[in-house]
Amino acid sequence: MSKPSVPQGTRDLTPEVVRKRLFLLATLRNIFEQCGFQPIETPSMENLTTLMGKYGEEGDRLVFKVLNNGLNDPNKHDKTRSALENVLQGKNDVNLTERALRYDLTIPFARYVVMHQSELQFPFRRYQMQPVWRADRPQKGRYREFWQCDVDIVGSNSLINEAELLYIYREAFFQLAVPEVVVRINSRKVLTGIAQYCGAEEKLVDITTAIDKLDKVGEEGVVKELSERGLTDKQIQDIIRLINCTELDRLEQEFIATEISEGILGIKELRDTIAYHSTLAKLEWNNSTLKIDFTLARGLSYYTGIIVEVNCNDPRIKMGSIGGGGRYDDLTGLFGLKDLSGVGVSFGIDRIYDVMEELHLFPAEIGVGTKAMIVNTGGENELYALNILKQLRSQNIAAEIYPEPLKFDKQMKYIFNRSIPFAIIIENEEREQGNVRIKNFAAGTQTKISIEVLIKTLS
Amino acid sequence: MSKPSVPQGTRDLTPEVVRKRLFLLATLRNIFEQCGFQPIETPSMENLTTLMGKYGEEGDRLVFKVLNNGLNDPNKHDKTRSALENVLQGKNDVNLTERALRYDLTIPFARYVVMHQSELQFPFRRYQMQPVWRADRPQKGRYREFWQCDVDIVGSNSLINEAELLYIYREAFFQLAVPEVVVRINSRKVLTGIAQYCGAEEKLVDITTAIDKLDKVGEEGVVKELSERGLTDKQIQDIIRLINCTELDRLEQEFIATEISEGILGIKELRDTIAYHSTLAKLEWNNSTLKIDFTLARGLSYYTGIIVEVNCNDPRIKMGSIGGGGRYDDLTGLFGLKDLSGVGVSFGIDRIYDVMEELHLFPAEIGVGTKAMIVNTGGENELYALNILKQLRSQNIAAEIYPEPLKFDKQMKYIFNRSIPFAIIIENEEREQGNVRIKNFAAGTQTKISIEVLIKTLS
Repeated sequence: MSKPSVPQGTRDLTPEVVRKRLFLLATLRNIFEQCGFQPIETPSMENLTTLMGKYGEEGDRLVFKVLNNGLNDPNKHDKTRSALENVLQGKNDVNLTERALRYDLTIPFARYVVMHQSELQFPFRRYQMQPVWRADRPQKGRYREFWQCDVDIVGSNSLINEAELLYIYREAFFQLAVPEVVVRINSRKVLTGIAQYCGAEEKLVDITTAIDKLDKVGEEGVVKELSERGLTDKQIQDIIRLINCTELDRLEQEFIATEISEGILGIKELRDTIAYHSTLAKLEWNNSTLKIDFTLARGLSYYTGIIVEVNCNDPRIKMGSIGGGGRYDDLTGLFGLKDLSGVGVSFGIDRIYDVMEELHLFPAEIGVGTKAMIVNTGGENELYALNILKQLRSQNIAAEIYPEPLKFDKQMKYIFNRSIPFAIIIENEEREQGNVRIKNFAAGTQTKISIEVLIKTLS
Repeated sequence: MSKPSVPQGTRDLTPEVVRKRLFLLATLRNIFEQCGFQPIETPSMENLTTLMGKYGEEGDRLVFKVLNNGLNDPNKHDKTRSALENVLQGKNDVNLTERALRYDLTIPFARYVVMHQSELQFPFRRYQMQPVWRADRPQKGRYREFWQCDVDIVGSNSLINEAELLYIYREAFFQLAVPEVVVRINSRKVLTGIAQYCGAEEKLVDITTAIDKLDKVGEEGVVKELSERGLTDKQIQDIIRLINCTELDRLEQEFIATEISEGILGIKELRDTIAYHSTLAKLEWNNSTLKIDFTLARGLSYYTGIIVEVNCNDPRIKMGSIGGGGRYDDLTGLFGLKDLSGVGVSFGIDRIYDVMEELHLFPAEIGVGTKAMIVNTGGENELYALNILKQLRSQNIAAEIYPEPLKFDKQMKYIFNRSIPFAIIIENEEREQGNVRIKNFAAGTQTKISIEVLIKTLS
């Protein structure tokens, strides 16, 4: 028998990791619910036709496809063989695979809204926290199965929605106590305005793609890429100057002077969003700042309005964004429902987990489940112990009994290794007196107490 | 564009369904944690070799296999083509699929224990709640993606473990308020004893398979099947008589008289399990009963000791078991770790959900997220309203504002349709006085109150 293993790029989650993840997800869930977002879940498998063509050539290649069942039916063999030839050419063929694992939560959400449009109340605010699968090359911290967490509002153009999502980001990172969080916002309309300003509107995608890499390649790299993408030196100079503006007013002046209405509108949207957000913002949020950043571009082409990205700038952390999103004007159009504007953000669950782990932000008590374990000394003591166990659980105290009357030392070692804080010892003497002995591992103390005091101690 | 759909046998979960499921899962999770069980999660995809050959021929056919990626690499074409020929013959070939979606949580758990044995403390108590996938023919209430919830203890022979799992069942169904729950237990050793009694030990699997169908086909059907499986009339008579015993003592006498030690041991194990369980049992559990039932067989061949099955016998419900499990002595042997005894039970999450839905057992407040929504009357009232929204949320009140100053009636209709219990109305008069109007949809009342009173009302 070969040693068992898990597929490359996947992993088992140990109890400690599961508990920490649950804490993270529950914190987010509470905030979403408090802000009126509703949970939905979509199937892990989608029809291949739902997913294909939505993620670009590179993305399509990374979709995990599910083999059709029942291929051993002889009537299907010829069709299946010719389907394989298509697949070998890099095409899709439903005669071999008609289903695939979801690649993100965005496309399934768009599909959901279109399919359920008659039963939904718009504006519809949903959140969704589920795993997704990508056949990416596995590397440290990047898995082929990982969780996404998306929060969206569709069916409303109001910038109050943008302000609400900024609220959610800052409240979430406040509650999670992540330090030095910077929430950057920009508007795609401002970037369009800048492209128009330098007479290169038709190169908008080139410009946003190049700017998007600023964090990675620096200003010099962006200049180089813009040049390679056919922008003139004068245009590049303008772009660099304008995206480096730090004030709304100054950039607005430039747009007003050149009568670029798209840019003016973008500035107004940023201003309104910030005004709404300021009203909602809490004084306590001193771990995060909201910052306008015209260099923020976001790669995805479907954004049309405000865009946002979140980073943790703590020097101990070296990591890309831990969240991002923006307004999109026609996502559901992919499935035939036109003119439904939406805005959404996502939380990078795995990266946030890593940040919290690195900075020891998870509360210590999360890791430990059981508070006390009863040492099993057998005989009559066993039923006496079970009775105490029942009383502890009635008081909501997480407790266990060692199931077998093994050697005392072995049981104590087990309890210690499990990091259970208290051991309860019952030998004949304690049973006859109606008492227990309790060992507190952290304090190194051992005392004889009544059951009443035991319950009080552990409550 | 074709109308979007989800794959056959899968479904979207609406907010109401997700919330109810979360309630169900959280209730179970709390009980597991209180009893010292630890959560683990395993990847959705396992290596095909991990899963294959574990579920019988029928089960193997229902495993969803994942197509390998990168098949368009010309160097692999020949291998892939010959792999397909194997698959067409009903065989597996890693050159076409090396991964598959998990079919249950049992085999991944066995794999987990073997892989992580050096870091685990035994006895190891774990629970796991995750979806599984089966290419079953979809039908009402049976899906191709559904959740399982397993609770196991491995590395201990003590019957305290059995008693603990019975505790978990009864406590869970008590907390969920499921009525008329019957937890039936039996021992595989008793069934072996019965087979020995009538001189048909080599037909044990035939006997358990036939008895297992008692609920579906009745006694007559079992007799017919036993006969077809080659049991003599005398043997069948004995089997029917013995499994219909209702008392431990009577069956024990038969085993003692015939010196069938396996049967005597089975009776002792049942008696000890019940004694342990009685000590743990709570007086409040008047919705469930524990019942010895020698007709209980459980189909799976890996059980070796106590077996258990749970049903809801409420006459309004027509449904098979909502839980079941038992002791297995060599599950991890499949992956090379011998002699590790375990016992486990599972909760049929989807069926329990259906029972609770049918009997209206979910608390009414679960379905509704948002408690109050502010009607947006625009202008200066908007920022005033956002400020109130912020105050409500600071008090942990789930609240929203309608994002746009639409027509009053349209907003009210939206709030009503969302089943949000309170609407908060702020027009110029209220803002100038520092008040709000609140509409209580259930009571049909509308009153003008201060913000202080508003917070009190909604808290």
